[in-house]
Amino acid sequence: MDKKNVSIAVVKRLPRYFRYLGDLIKNDVLKVSSNELSKKMQVTASQIRQDLNCFGGFGQQGYGYNVLSLYNEIGNILGANRNYKVIIIGIGNLGNAIANNVNFEKRGAKLIGLFDVLPSIIGTVCNNLIVNSMENLESFCNEYKPDIAVLTLPKKEAPEIFKRLIKANIKSFWNFSNMELIAPEGICVENVHIGDSLMTLCYCIKTNEGK
Amino acid sequence: MDKKNVSIAVVKRLPRYFRYLGDLIKNDVLKVSSNELSKKMQVTASQIRQDLNCFGGFGQQGYGYNVLSLYNEIGNILGANRNYKVIIIGIGNLGNAIANNVNFEKRGAKLIGLFDVLPSIIGTVCNNLIVNSMENLESFCNEYKPDIAVLTLPKKEAPEIFKRLIKANIKSFWNFSNMELIAPEGICVENVHIGDSLMTLCYCIKTNEGK
Repeated sequence: MDKKNVSIAVVKRLPRYFRYLGDLIKNDVLKVSSNELSKKMQVTASQIRQDLNCFGGFGQQGYGYNVLSLYNEIGNILGANRNYKVIIIGIGNLGNAIANNVNFEKRGAKLIGLFDVLPSIIGTVCNNLIVNSMENLESFCNEYKPDIAVLTLPKKEAPEIFKRLIKANIKSFWNFSNMELIAPEGICVENVHIGDSLMTLCYCIKTNEGK
Repeated sequence: MDKKNVSIAVVKRLPRYFRYLGDLIKNDVLKVSSNELSKKMQVTASQIRQDLNCFGGFGQQGYGYNVLSLYNEIGNILGANRNYKVIIIGIGNLGNAIANNVNFEKRGAKLIGLFDVLPSIIGTVCNNLIVNSMENLESFCNEYKPDIAVLTLPKKEAPEIFKRLIKANIKSFWNFSNMELIAPEGICVENVHIGDSLMTLCYCIKTNEGK
């Protein structure tokens, strides 16, 4: 398998396949055709075949895909078996929601630490972890070597904390601060702007109204 | 301007342009070239020119784009001037984070109601709105006619509440329940799976490690 053939556009679609296949496994489905996947996912069957062909043709004509091998293969490509260590910086509502609702284990990660600056939040428990003070950030990173920092802190604090975390040797950032962070060489940043998809929805409403 | 020429892929990129141009306006920047936008946004200048050409060429050779008109034009296309009325169903941590952190007004929407089933949450105040009981959902919808429902409720409750809201005449859904909802004819659904971008990040880490 030549990994270089997997474009970032395909990679961005893979988590969705991964979720669907996970649901099929839960329902004891062993095989699935691109047509069945197409109906469920509202993507054309030819798009599905094209995407999955990118990393080797696992489908058999007239038989379909083996759900479990496809699930594992996509998981391997995405690194879902790597158990990357995650810390969350900022345990307000959004940090709390992410700590409690994101299934880290299933997605190749493990939540190991929570940090905040507010005395009213430090020491509280969230998803079985005690919220740590930001004062202990460097010693924690030194000891546990987290791979990923989730930034759920106010926009204006993001750039400084970003630099501090890079100094503490963290190489990957899942950034919800609404401050677009530009990744220096060797650093990965996934900037998430939740509100962007509200605008896509508004466009859809507007277009429907015009019909 | 022929709106049919704007593909959904371009539409999904427009909110990001909209945010950047909004920042430029805040900083009193009047003109911007595709090269400058390209550096800031880490997208090729040719991609930017192509995207913006989709809805009429606002740029002038050797002059660049007029920031304010481009901002307004993209806002118009996305429906950011429509003031769609929004309610949120489920005021746990995620509902709270969305109520407080998403700048609805800037994105063509207005938050008008919050709903929950838990007695401990009903009656509390969040972003200047009192959380309403789900028992009052239908009468509220009848009176205020919201356009969009944000679903920040548990996965297993999503399908039933989705049907109930459609009956109450809501036509658009911003869905964070992790239950992929399929839109019937005439209904818009934007399914958001926050965890998907964590997998894209894990892929990036894995790829960087392989270098």
